Amino acid sequence: MRGFFIVLEGIDGVGKTTQAKILARKLRQQGREVVEVREPGGTQLGEAIRELLAREEELAPWAETCLFLASRAQLVEEVIKPALAQGKIVVGDRFSLSTLAYQGGARGLGVDRLAQLNSWVTGGLEPDLTLVIDLKVEEALARGKGDLREEIRQKLEIVRERYLSLAKERAGKVLVVSGQGSVEEVSGRIWTLVEEALARWPSG
Amino acid sequence: MRGFFIVLEGIDGVGKTTQAKILARKLRQQGREVVEVREPGGTQLGEAIRELLAREEELAPWAETCLFLASRAQLVEEVIKPALAQGKIVVGDRFSLSTLAYQGGARGLGVDRLAQLNSWVTGGLEPDLTLVIDLKVEEALARGKGDLREEIRQKLEIVRERYLSLAKERAGKVLVVSGQGSVEEVSGRIWTLVEEALARWPSG
Ligand SMILES: Nc1ncnc2c1ncn2[C@@H]1O[C@H](COP(=O)(O)OP(=O)(O)O)[C@@H](O)[C@H]1O
Ligand SMILES: Nc1ncnc2c1ncn2[C@@H]1O[C@H](COP(=O)(O)OP(=O)(O)O)[C@@H](O)[C@H]1O
Ligand SMILES: [Mg+2]
Ligand SMILES: [Mg+2]
Repeated sequence: MRGFFIVLEGIDGVGKTTQAKILARKLRQQGREVVEVREPGGTQLGEAIRELLAREEELAPWAETCLFLASRAQLVEEVIKPALAQGKIVVGDRFSLSTLAYQGGARGLGVDRLAQLNSWVTGGLEPDLTLVIDLKVEEALARGKGDLREEIRQKLEIVRERYLSLAKERAGKVLVVSGQGSVEEVSGRIWTLVEEALARWPSG
Repeated sequence: MRGFFIVLEGIDGVGKTTQAKILARKLRQQGREVVEVREPGGTQLGEAIRELLAREEELAPWAETCLFLASRAQLVEEVIKPALAQGKIVVGDRFSLSTLAYQGGARGLGVDRLAQLNSWVTGGLEPDLTLVIDLKVEEALARGKGDLREEIRQKLEIVRERYLSLAKERAGKVLVVSGQGSVEEVSGRIWTLVEEALARWPSG
């Protein structure tokens, strides 16, 4: 029996962390074993990398990318693969699509190269279902109380568009869900999609 | 005018750090401007990564690799490229060949993938001259007072062989220099090779 790997994606402030917690709780209420992971982080190395990335240092684009991927490589080996091997459900707050959308989009490193590198680093592990929570940049920034500078807004516009086109190219495995409305409305939408996907899962 | 980038390579304990300092001193005595760099390290990020790598944590092979490459990407952008653009000589204590020899050899990640990734991360920047200091593993371990366990010895045998075959494939840009004998004997050999290379350098 192999577990099931669900990832929530989207630009900062759309509600990934909020929804990941709710999703994990609902799955547990059904009696399922759930492991929650976040990126960067989730391991000793990953949390140290998270701190490095949060420092006030101008990072070269590839340096930033390699830090995210180091965190992911460790998370896959140490946490995700073992959990899936035990048949658990893994709920991820960001994963590979973030690299393609942020570093491939806003940082301009090229989606093909990043997808290639990402597949080496994860040993080809892909989520069974990725949900991109989509919201207008202004609404996400207002929710997240993030940096409201025009430069940041423009960067996030690019990332949002990139998420939407990545989802289109990966239709079926990557679905877009509207982030508009209350927390409950969004979690209801997510739950519908997750239940459908789990119904097709042999162990579900 | 473009500077000149010289890198010293080889397994732990062969004398890279010792020889890099001597080489930099000799070049400065000739009135040249020299920048010394080491890997991992040389930037705020790189030194933090150096600490992460020194921790007692079992790292996934790709996590380790990505950490080294994050450090390299930052070092290239922040230090090496600007120094070369100013016509300086950069002396490196390890660089790309270490990744190919250690992660490609002992870690088994595949030289082709690592060479590809390395070229993305460095923007294609290659040393003008790489010198592999070669020494029997037992002698290097005895000098370095490193870990003498059989497992480490065997790993370093693989890395040593990998260095020698990488040098063969890159004849001209990567030269092997014997690390046997006194510090002065080795530095004399290195100096001969560096003087020859600099004589062919237009700005030399
Ligand atoms: N549907 C929603 N409506 C209003 N506020 C929300 C909604 N979802 C999340 N929030 C709030 O928006 C902020 C960002 O949510 P968060 O889950 O941290 O987003 P992300 O993890 O995507 O950056 C939080 O303060 C959260 O409480
Ligand atoms: N030619 C040499 N003969 C004897 N000892 C040496 C020689 N070169 C270096 N050493 C010593 O060997 C140890 C390892 O040298 P080091 O330069 O740190 O190697 P590396 O940087 O390649 O690991 C140091 O203690 C150094 O003083
Ligand atoms: Mg979050
Ligand atoms: Mg050294």
